[in-house]
Amino acid sequence: MGGESIKVLVSCKDARGVIAGVTEFVASAGGNVIDLDQHVDVDEQVFVMRLEVERGTVEGSPEAFERAFAGVEARFGLKTRIEWAERPRRIGVMVSKEGHCLSDLLWRWRDGELGAEVAVVISNHETLRAMAERAGVAFRHIGVTPVTKPRAEREARRVLAEEGVDVLVLARYMQVLGEDFAAAWDGRAINIHHSFLPAFAGARPYHRAHERGVKLIGATAHYVTADLDEGPIIAQRTSPVSHRDGVEDLKRIGRDLERITLAEAIRLHVQDRVLRVGRRTVVFR
Amino acid sequence: MGGESIKVLVSCKDARGVIAGVTEFVASAGGNVIDLDQHVDVDEQVFVMRLEVERGTVEGSPEAFERAFAGVEARFGLKTRIEWAERPRRIGVMVSKEGHCLSDLLWRWRDGELGAEVAVVISNHETLRAMAERAGVAFRHIGVTPVTKPRAEREARRVLAEEGVDVLVLARYMQVLGEDFAAAWDGRAINIHHSFLPAFAGARPYHRAHERGVKLIGATAHYVTADLDEGPIIAQRTSPVSHRDGVEDLKRIGRDLERITLAEAIRLHVQDRVLRVGRRTVVFR
Amino acid sequence: MGGESIKVLVSCKDARGVIAGVTEFVASAGGNVIDLDQHVDVDEQVFVMRLEVERGTVEGSPEAFERAFAGVEARFGLKTRIEWAERPRRIGVMVSKEGHCLSDLLWRWRDGELGAEVAVVISNHETLRAMAERAGVAFRHIGVTPVTKPRAEREARRVLAEEGVDVLVLARYMQVLGEDFAAAWDGRAINIHHSFLPAFAGARPYHRAHERGVKLIGATAHYVTADLDEGPIIAQRTSPVSHRDGVEDLKRIGRDLERITLAEAIRLHVQDRVLRVGRRTVVFR
Amino acid sequence: MGGESIKVLVSCKDARGVIAGVTEFVASAGGNVIDLDQHVDVDEQVFVMRLEVERGTVEGSPEAFERAFAGVEARFGLKTRIEWAERPRRIGVMVSKEGHCLSDLLWRWRDGELGAEVAVVISNHETLRAMAERAGVAFRHIGVTPVTKPRAEREARRVLAEEGVDVLVLARYMQVLGEDFAAAWDGRAINIHHSFLPAFAGARPYHRAHERGVKLIGATAHYVTADLDEGPIIAQRTSPVSHRDGVEDLKRIGRDLERITLAEAIRLHVQDRVLRVGRRTVVFR
Repeated sequence: MGGESIKVLVSCKDARGVIAGVTEFVASAGGNVIDLDQHVDVDEQVFVMRLEVERGTVEGSPEAFERAFAGVEARFGLKTRIEWAERPRRIGVMVSKEGHCLSDLLWRWRDGELGAEVAVVISNHETLRAMAERAGVAFRHIGVTPVTKPRAEREARRVLAEEGVDVLVLARYMQVLGEDFAAAWDGRAINIHHSFLPAFAGARPYHRAHERGVKLIGATAHYVTADLDEGPIIAQRTSPVSHRDGVEDLKRIGRDLERITLAEAIRLHVQDRVLRVGRRTVVFR
Repeated sequence: MGGESIKVLVSCKDARGVIAGVTEFVASAGGNVIDLDQHVDVDEQVFVMRLEVERGTVEGSPEAFERAFAGVEARFGLKTRIEWAERPRRIGVMVSKEGHCLSDLLWRWRDGELGAEVAVVISNHETLRAMAERAGVAFRHIGVTPVTKPRAEREARRVLAEEGVDVLVLARYMQVLGEDFAAAWDGRAINIHHSFLPAFAGARPYHRAHERGVKLIGATAHYVTADLDEGPIIAQRTSPVSHRDGVEDLKRIGRDLERITLAEAIRLHVQDRVLRVGRRTVVFR
Repeated sequence: MGGESIKVLVSCKDARGVIAGVTEFVASAGGNVIDLDQHVDVDEQVFVMRLEVERGTVEGSPEAFERAFAGVEARFGLKTRIEWAERPRRIGVMVSKEGHCLSDLLWRWRDGELGAEVAVVISNHETLRAMAERAGVAFRHIGVTPVTKPRAEREARRVLAEEGVDVLVLARYMQVLGEDFAAAWDGRAINIHHSFLPAFAGARPYHRAHERGVKLIGATAHYVTADLDEGPIIAQRTSPVSHRDGVEDLKRIGRDLERITLAEAIRLHVQDRVLRVGRRTVVFR
Repeated sequence: MGGESIKVLVSCKDARGVIAGVTEFVASAGGNVIDLDQHVDVDEQVFVMRLEVERGTVEGSPEAFERAFAGVEARFGLKTRIEWAERPRRIGVMVSKEGHCLSDLLWRWRDGELGAEVAVVISNHETLRAMAERAGVAFRHIGVTPVTKPRAEREARRVLAEEGVDVLVLARYMQVLGEDFAAAWDGRAINIHHSFLPAFAGARPYHRAHERGVKLIGATAHYVTADLDEGPIIAQRTSPVSHRDGVEDLKRIGRDLERITLAEAIRLHVQDRVLRVGRRTVVFR
């Protein structure tokens, strides 16, 4: 489904007439709407809508379509994003030493399940080089120390640009992105945190979950923001645990949660199904 | 939300232009679309759509609106249902001796959570009379034997008509409805079955689940059809069980599944969120 | 199963030989062990064990059995609790205005599912009097203001004593128990908190969950301690939510989580299946 | 935990005194019981128990211990299995063309999570050779046609014997094992079926789940018996789906269920936590 439809994402303050206005315009351009979803966020007073339009039905060039769309935008005060999906989205993955999320993403990519390409793996360790290279992905080692961090981040950003990366995935990357880095990738970088946020934000969540004696553990995929573990949540899952589960068991059970939750968030993102509204996300499944 | 919006449900063979056509019409009548969801069932080649329109924004009478809508219907070959929701839907509940689902529905109704009114309880036993009457609901005992069943069903249908019942709920009613009865209430009668259908259709599902040694039990809410336990599924839930759980434990755990699954299905139905497409349902949440 | 077996709960520092020592003793007294579960908490270096012994097989009086057991205790340095379960445990419920948990407990009690008796309902409001009295339970209104709180708590404790209450359940009681009250009921008082603790401890968890944009909500049943929402967790559950769910939807979905989680915790507690080890619980299901 | 403890599994008709008798014997041999779990299956009138004994604490040789244990067995009429776990269990995996379960098992093995070794992969296709060999596992292609099936199965059994395989895993092997083969590996062969059994036993479960319109799909790991999909169930999981999910989506969602459920079943089996009682399993977690 992904590659053959145009995604039109709009948001505005006042929803009145927008659905009719936009779909009427699409129809006038020959476009066949095959999926439409919309939502009004009452707190933020924002209307958001996502349309999928059959690519082959749209007459004229993308440029002509977008030019003509500008009239609709002006009329309703829309903010618009149109994805023509000419090529699969390219993913850059940053990792440290833990390989379960990377391994999972590589497998899903190779199996055609991810709906995107893994373009490059960047790591502050050499541990996962073999895993990446065996799957045919470029691996770049960029060491990070408190002193070298600014330089390392510039280097990483250069690699991401060179590789034409659209989506940055922190797949258990144990470093906090600097403010500039986070800002530059705002809305395009996804992190997996190994707890049910906002519980156990920060370091060593499984240890703290064990100490607290919780009966469920969780994983959270969220957009990266400068405030660590505070970004808008895309997907969350939990799994029951018991007093028999020590920290190592929580880690084991958690690995499955992490990789499934992360893959789900990436898939939703690259299908342009996730819209940010304030601190929250709207996820059109 | 329920009472102040019009629900427009349409289905047709070819989706092209329908979204634009319908929303444009609604806008031309002054109506403000506050929710829209649609779906194409590929197997059945059917397009279905649900709109919620802010009641206060629609100009003119319901009759005038529907008359004008007939033009849109003709243009696209739509089958349409428009719910003006002038009054809460009225529920008739049929039960035998088990009270957990009835008790739950009565509580949700009294707490304002059901989005509908419980109008009458009909039973082939006297067991639950006190429960119904204490909640202020009329209780009708209609005994059923193989011989009296046709007469009993006529009587039940008369009571449902008298009480102005819109939705019939079989809340652990241990009798199979006759073909005529099922047909007369087609699409308006909901049953709760105490298994994860199609597993353990028919009698004594908890006993058979225990014998088979399953590690999860389930509940299924579905529309009633003449084929027992074969009707379109609205909602399903499962819960883990272990070797420690005997049949009585499965029943206890199952009671919670049953009542939550049934209440969910009723809520979705009375909000006109469930559309039947062949043997399946489309549930616009 | 509950009423016809003796529960023997022991804990000690060093587990070596304890299982053999205790079961051998029970066998020597004629007792037939029908269930045994044990666990070593590595962090606290504590061994805990729970035995169920068929009541009818134990020779001699409870006093004689316990006197003889003292020898085993001394030998292994055991802390022991023996429950003879001569009568069902008696529950006192404290509530404010929200009735869903109370209603649920009353129903489960009447249906024989709770394994305990609801002895009295205490509230700082009159709202739920009718609900309690209709179910045949004594209702005591004890108003609470910042000024009268100490007196009100003395009054509540007096009522609980008078009614022979064994287990205190805070079923959405919107007051924090004073330190003395909490200490007096330590290990015998259960609270339901309407979030997945430690996330959203404190007030208005559903509002805060909505603001944060979580994709799951939860409920937590825990023992009451002087530190609000910090007590040992007995049971937790979560349920998925989406951007479509406003605060009222979270409350509705949460009510089902709360009542099921609370009932589960109470059932486990009155079957003597929950042992506290430090800040955590061991739950022998 | 796995390698350093002895697992003692016993079953018998009458439970009286067995716990004391067995633990007393273990203590007399110097053995320290670090985990004990037991269960009475009421339907089959069978008592089963699992003990873990700290390996280093047992005095004398395994032979001496087992010889002495024979006395306890005779006294209580026990059927006993003692696992000394001198080496990790060896797994043989049979696959056809679908690689998600194999890929997952290989990753878990390499990550040290499986508690066992993958010794050999046997397939009736060449598709997954590269995957196996890249992970350093021997791959044997054994083609199967209706005519060659008896010979192919003899060949497969010979390979399994040669490789010293303890546990046979059918990881989406799309062939039914012959009766002899199934019987020879009775209780040591695990299959993953891609449905919530007993629903959708047999072929194409995702297609049939889609046709039926279920709202949850499932996966079932079970012991292989001559009756296809009828073997004792070890683990099951379900995941919600909606009308938006076509057959390909069910397959995608199902792949995660399958691999997690299968890995869980294998881990439980190689830790000797699964006991068969009639058609059911007792799973001591």
